[in-house]
Amino acid sequence: MSIAEAGEFGLISRIVARLGSGEATLLGPGDDAAIISAPDRRVVASTDVLVEGRHFRRDWCGPEDIGHRAAAANLADIAAMGAVPTALLVALCIPTGLDIAWAEGLADGLTAESALVGATVVGGDTSSSPTLTIAVTALGDLRGAAPVRRDGAQPGDVLALCGRIGHAAAGLTVLSRGFRTPKLLVEAYRRPAVPYSAGPAAARLGATSMIDVSDGLLQDLGHIAAASVVGIDIRSDAFDLPVQMRDTAKALGIDPYLWLLAGGDDHPLAATFPPGVDLPPEWRVIGSVHDGSGVTVDRKPWTGGLGWDHFR
Amino acid sequence: MSIAEAGEFGLISRIVARLGSGEATLLGPGDDAAIISAPDRRVVASTDVLVEGRHFRRDWCGPEDIGHRAAAANLADIAAMGAVPTALLVALCIPTGLDIAWAEGLADGLTAESALVGATVVGGDTSSSPTLTIAVTALGDLRGAAPVRRDGAQPGDVLALCGRIGHAAAGLTVLSRGFRTPKLLVEAYRRPAVPYSAGPAAARLGATSMIDVSDGLLQDLGHIAAASVVGIDIRSDAFDLPVQMRDTAKALGIDPYLWLLAGGDDHPLAATFPPGVDLPPEWRVIGSVHDGSGVTVDRKPWTGGLGWDHFR
Repeated sequence: MSIAEAGEFGLISRIVARLGSGEATLLGPGDDAAIISAPDRRVVASTDVLVEGRHFRRDWCGPEDIGHRAAAANLADIAAMGAVPTALLVALCIPTGLDIAWAEGLADGLTAESALVGATVVGGDTSSSPTLTIAVTALGDLRGAAPVRRDGAQPGDVLALCGRIGHAAAGLTVLSRGFRTPKLLVEAYRRPAVPYSAGPAAARLGATSMIDVSDGLLQDLGHIAAASVVGIDIRSDAFDLPVQMRDTAKALGIDPYLWLLAGGDDHPLAATFPPGVDLPPEWRVIGSVHDGSGVTVDRKPWTGGLGWDHFR
Repeated sequence: MSIAEAGEFGLISRIVARLGSGEATLLGPGDDAAIISAPDRRVVASTDVLVEGRHFRRDWCGPEDIGHRAAAANLADIAAMGAVPTALLVALCIPTGLDIAWAEGLADGLTAESALVGATVVGGDTSSSPTLTIAVTALGDLRGAAPVRRDGAQPGDVLALCGRIGHAAAGLTVLSRGFRTPKLLVEAYRRPAVPYSAGPAAARLGATSMIDVSDGLLQDLGHIAAASVVGIDIRSDAFDLPVQMRDTAKALGIDPYLWLLAGGDDHPLAATFPPGVDLPPEWRVIGSVHDGSGVTVDRKPWTGGLGWDHFR
C-alpha cells in the first residue's frame, strides 16, 4: 500500500504500532506532545537531519539501515556530551508514492537503534514531500554529571578515540563505485556501531572535551581546537587499518587516510583527557593537545582533503 | 549571497548570530547538543514539520512570517499540554540557490515568536535539499502541573475555545484566489496569534482535556472525542464572525463555517472543563461533551468537509 493510500493518520498509526516503550517515556505518541523524564533537571537535546540523495540513497541502504543511521547520528551527539539518550522525536517527510512498508522499515530501524541505549521514539510528525527527509531530535539525561563540551581541551592532554573510524567512508566509496563488498566496510556504512556508553564513561574518566566524529576526524577535531583555543596533533601511526580497508584502498588507488582522517558517518567518539589518565582498552590514544591552533597530522598540515561540507 | 556561497558553516554562523538567549538555556548552539533546564524533572517535547508547497509558499509569506508560523505550530503543542515552552531545535533543509538573507529572516521569525514565551532556538541542523523543509522540535516545562491530555473529557463537560479560529483558513483562501486583502485574514494566515499562556492557565482552571487546533476544529476535536470515548457537540451560534470574514465569504461564495470548523493554522486552544467552571473572558464556550462518540454541530453530523489530511 502506498503512503497516499494509507493517508496521514494511517501512516502514523502504522508507524506508532512499531515503536517500543522506554523507561523515560512518561507519555508517548498520540497527544499534542510527549513527556519524557528528566531526572537531573536538565535535558540534553540535539537535532540531525538526513536528506535523500545527500545523506543516503535508497538503493544503497534499506529502510531499516536508514533508520539505524538516522537514530545513530543523533544518539551519538547525546553520548558525546557524556549523557545517556532517553528519547527520539522524528519528522518524516515522505513522497506519497513510496510503499508504507518502507516507512515501517524505517520505524523498525529507528526503534532498534534506540533500544541499544534504552531510548524510544516518543513522538514526531509526518508530511508528504517530494524529497524524502528524516529529521530526528534526540533527548538525553546527564545523570548528575557535568557535560563534556568542546571547549575544555588543555595543552598536554592526550587525544583518544573510541569506535570505528574510516569504515563507513570506505563503504561509501565501495558502494559509489558499484561494488557491494567487502562486507565489513559496506555494512559499516549501512549501520554505524556507535560506542554510546563510552560517552558517559569518558565523562567519569575526566574527559576535558569530547565530540562525535560525524563529518571527518580532522574537521570535527578542528571544532574542538577552535572552541578550546588549542592545537591538536594526530599521530598517523596510531591507526590500525583492517586488512579489508587496506586491500580496498590499494585496489581502488585511494589513500586510506582519506577515509580515516576525512571520512564521516562512523560516529566514533573523540575525546581529550588529562595527561596520565588510565584509559580502558576501548579508547585508543591517537594524538595530543598543544599550545597553538588547528589540527595537524604528524606535526604537519594535512593536505589530502578536509571533511564534508553539506553545501559544497 | 547564496546559501551555496556561504557554505554550511557560514550559514550556521549567520543563523546562530541572530538567535536570542533564554532563561532555560544552559548550553546553546555550538556543541554536539544543547542543554536545557527541566526544573520539574519532566520535559514536554513535540515536533512539527513545514514543507514548502504543502504548508507554505514563499510568494505568500516572507521568511519572517514562515519562521513565526513554524515556531507557533510547535509552541502551541507545548501550550496545549498545559506547559510553558523553553526551547526550540530546528532542522533546516534548504535549496543552495536561495539567498542567505532568506535563512536569516527565517531565524528572525523563529526567534521573535519564541521570545513571546521566553523560549529560544538552542540548536539544530542544516542541509541542502531541493525541497525547502523546516522541522522544529519544541521543549517545555510543566512547572509541577499535571499535563492536560486528550483523553480526560467527561460527559457533562463544557467545551471552550481560546484564540482566533477560521481566520488563517480564510486568509489562505484569499491568497489562493490571488487577493492580498482583507488584511485581517491574510495577516492571520501569515502570523498566527496563539494564546500560549492560556494553556497553563487552562490546566490551573481544571481543564479535563485540551488540544491546539492546527488541522481544523472538527478534526482536532475528533481526536479528543476518540481518546476520551465521548461525543462532542459544537454550537454553531457560539462563533462571532468578524465582518471581514463575513464579507469575504459572501464575495467568494463560500460558507464561512468551512473556515471555522475545518480550517487550520490559527492554533487556538480547545479545552473541556467540568460543568460550572468559571472561565475567564478569553475562553468562549462553544459546545459540550456528552455520552456517545464523534463530533456534531448543533447535534447533527456536519457535511461540509472535514479538516486537512496532509496526504490527500
